[in-house]
Amino acid sequence: MILVSKTQIKLITSLQQKKYRNKLGLFVAEGPKVINELITAKLQLHSLYSTVDGLFEGETVQIVSEKELSKITALKNANNSLAVFKIPDKKPYVENGITVVLDAIQDPGNLGTIIRLCDWFDVKNLICSLNTVDCFNPKVIQATMGSIVRVNIVYTAIEEFILERNSPVYIGAMNGKNIYKENLPDKAIIIVGNEANGVSTNIINLVGNKVAIPQFGVNKKTESLNVATATAILLSEFKRITVS
Amino acid sequence: MILVSKTQIKLITSLQQKKYRNKLGLFVAEGPKVINELITAKLQLHSLYSTVDGLFEGETVQIVSEKELSKITALKNANNSLAVFKIPDKKPYVENGITVVLDAIQDPGNLGTIIRLCDWFDVKNLICSLNTVDCFNPKVIQATMGSIVRVNIVYTAIEEFILERNSPVYIGAMNGKNIYKENLPDKAIIIVGNEANGVSTNIINLVGNKVAIPQFGVNKKTESLNVATATAILLSEFKRITVS
Repeated sequence: MILVSKTQIKLITSLQQKKYRNKLGLFVAEGPKVINELITAKLQLHSLYSTVDGLFEGETVQIVSEKELSKITALKNANNSLAVFKIPDKKPYVENGITVVLDAIQDPGNLGTIIRLCDWFDVKNLICSLNTVDCFNPKVIQATMGSIVRVNIVYTAIEEFILERNSPVYIGAMNGKNIYKENLPDKAIIIVGNEANGVSTNIINLVGNKVAIPQFGVNKKTESLNVATATAILLSEFKRITVS
Repeated sequence: MILVSKTQIKLITSLQQKKYRNKLGLFVAEGPKVINELITAKLQLHSLYSTVDGLFEGETVQIVSEKELSKITALKNANNSLAVFKIPDKKPYVENGITVVLDAIQDPGNLGTIIRLCDWFDVKNLICSLNTVDCFNPKVIQATMGSIVRVNIVYTAIEEFILERNSPVYIGAMNGKNIYKENLPDKAIIIVGNEANGVSTNIINLVGNKVAIPQFGVNKKTESLNVATATAILLSEFKRITVS
C-alpha cells in the first residue's frame, strides 16, 4: 500500500480554499459517481485516490486506507474515492436561448442545485457575479452531480454583462409581475439574487423588469421560496413554452 | 444568570431523537425567527432559552450563556435562542385542492423545503409515508422557516390512503408523461418518492399515472432533478392553471 505523503495531503486540503484552487488551477471531486462523470467529460485528471480497486477503468489510481482518505477528504464521511482535476480552460460566452445570471449566491448547495437545473433545462451559460460562491468549491462539485461539465460557468461583473446584452432581462423578485401571466420569450436573461437580500438594488435599477412566482392562498405568510427552488420554477416557465 | 440544569440538557438533547420526541410530545426549534413564527402560530411553549434578552415579548425566557446554549443546540453554530414546544395535536385529513404525498423521503432538508413549498402553493395537506423522515426533526424545523404550522402533515400508510381517495393521482417519475402537455385538474393527489429510488413499485402498480418534467436539449445526461426541486415544478404546474 502506497502512503499518501504529507506534501500530497497539504496540496489536496489546500484545495478546499478558493485562493489555492485558483493559484494551482486544480480542484477536488469526491465519490466514484461524480469522479467518473468528470473523467467521461474528458476533464484532465491530476491524481486519483481510492480505498477500492477497480472503480476507474484505465486510470492510475493510488489505493489508500480509510484513514489516509479521511486526512484528505472535505466531507464528513468520505465516499471511498477522491480525485484532483485540473480546472478546465475558460470558454467564451456565446449567447444561446436562456442565460441565467446569479447575483451574490452564497450557499454552495444552492449553486450546485442551480447548475444541475441549468443542465436539465439546457441552459448553456450560467453567469455568476464575482461575489458568488466559487463553482469549484467541493460542496458545489458534490451538489452538481457532474452537471458542472455541461454548463459554461462565467464569473464576471454582472452589471457590465447585462449592459452589453440585447436580449430581454427578467429579475426574479418577490414584488415582480406574476410570471404565469407573462408572455415569455425563448431567448432571455434571468437574474436571481442572494439568499437573504435578493437581486441587488443597482441591478434592479438597471433592468427594472421584475417577475415573481405568486404566493397562493388567502393566508400568505410563507417567508419566501428558496433561491434554487425559485430558479427551478422560473426555468420551467421559460422552457415549457418550447414544448410543442 | 440562571444555569441550565443537567436534567434540562438531557431533556433537550434527547429531543434530537424521534423516539423521545414522540414519548415526550415535545420538539425543539432554534433561532429567533423560527421560534417567533411558532409562537405567533399559537404553538404551546414548553421552555425558551436565549443568550439575548428582549427577543420574545411576553414570554418567559431563560437567559443562558453561549457555552450553555452550545450544550443544548443541535446546530453546528447555535443561533442565540432555542425553544422547546409541545407537538401540536394531530388534525384530521380534509381533502382540499392539491394533496402532496411523500414516499420515503429521507433528507430533512428536502422535507423542510417541500413543507415550505406546500405552504407557498396553498397545499393544505402533506401526507408522509411512515418511513419518511420525521417532520419534527430539528433540521426539518430549521428548513421549514415556520411553514410547518400552516401545513397539515399526516404520517400514515400511503397505499391505504391512496386507495381511499377518489381524486386523480399523479406520480412524479422520470419515465412519465410530459407534464407540460397534460390537462391538470385543480383537485389531485401528487406523489413524489425517495431521493435514490423514486416512488416505490407497489405504489406505481397501484396508480400507474406517471408524469415527468422533461429534460431539455439533445445531450440529456443530467442525473435527475432533486426531489424538492421536482416538487416545486410539479406544484407550479398544478397551481398555475388557477391563475386567471
